[in-house]
Amino acid sequence: MQAPSVKERIILGIDPGTAVMGYGLIKETGSKVELVSLGVVKMDHLDDHALKLQRIFEKTIALIDEYKPDCMALEAPFYGKNIQVMLKLGRAQGVAMAAALSRNLPICEYAPRKIKQSITGNGNATKEQVAAMLQTLLKFTETPQFLDATDGLAVAVCHSFQKISLKGTSSIGGGKKSATGWAAFIKDNSDRVSGTKSTKKI
Amino acid sequence: MQAPSVKERIILGIDPGTAVMGYGLIKETGSKVELVSLGVVKMDHLDDHALKLQRIFEKTIALIDEYKPDCMALEAPFYGKNIQVMLKLGRAQGVAMAAALSRNLPICEYAPRKIKQSITGNGNATKEQVAAMLQTLLKFTETPQFLDATDGLAVAVCHSFQKISLKGTSSIGGGKKSATGWAAFIKDNSDRVSGTKSTKKI
Repeated sequence: MQAPSVKERIILGIDPGTAVMGYGLIKETGSKVELVSLGVVKMDHLDDHALKLQRIFEKTIALIDEYKPDCMALEAPFYGKNIQVMLKLGRAQGVAMAAALSRNLPICEYAPRKIKQSITGNGNATKEQVAAMLQTLLKFTETPQFLDATDGLAVAVCHSFQKISLKGTSSIGGGKKSATGWAAFIKDNSDRVSGTKSTKKI
Repeated sequence: MQAPSVKERIILGIDPGTAVMGYGLIKETGSKVELVSLGVVKMDHLDDHALKLQRIFEKTIALIDEYKPDCMALEAPFYGKNIQVMLKLGRAQGVAMAAALSRNLPICEYAPRKIKQSITGNGNATKEQVAAMLQTLLKFTETPQFLDATDGLAVAVCHSFQKISLKGTSSIGGGKKSATGWAAFIKDNSDRVSGTKSTKKI
């Protein structure tokens, strides 16, 4: 077995919506990935849109301050049912991104299809299939109550897979997609990937 | 002349877009409104979407810290040409809102039509007509280079007019629309108005 890089990295994955925000944190040690935390923030009970945005902002800041992740990966749908939904979704994403920007944290975005494909090998996988694969990979059992949380976790794992495949170490996810690598993904999806490593501390 | 309330208030108005952000600051003393500052932040040269969002976040934070406004009024289009544009616009709005949330600043939103109507008496007024009315009201001459800045200034003045008409003091803007008042506006546009006075300092 070849010696993997032993550099540790914590990845925060979030799926910001206007009713529920799912999040997951993983710790990557070389090609090994462990679950650190996952959870959901419910916002159904808040009827004020600004209060929902505030909740997303506060929770994202709190997660960053508590776990000190090295980057934030975001599930970012690029197409949706209608204009109003996309505006609200854009605001939710913008607020979560601002939380990361305010803490000098690089951001990467992935489309839902890319995330499903990275984890299950099928871009059209169901939420349940993604959750089942994550349970196997990360050895946890807390579904189906945490299905929304697994969306956040999934994007963190997806991000980890991209980096691992770039480094040339073995991919945990079966490696079906990892042959393309991070560089190729950036090339093919330049509009979906936002690196902000040059961010200054506010 | 009846004695107006002499309470001072500074209003930050912003119009966050993905290519240009316009902003304006006004000082309200009773029913008197003065121009404090106006400007634009150009983002055309930034090809990375995350860098644009970061610029909006940083500039909004900087304006809040420099001028210590009592509230932020936001020009917020609710309809747009297409889904992609609305997602990006939503993110720009979300980032600006997060900047205010992080500084414990109440946020109010106004649709472009409402702003134009408040200032010129015509919801379909052109940018130039709005700018001309603002120049008359606030006694400045820096257009047309600052047309984008006047969009930010316009929403600050619009917000001021709502409050003034609610207090029952005279409206500076000719009062054509102010008869409806703030309470009526909230009632008619509850989904457009977001008060976050209960925000906690992060």
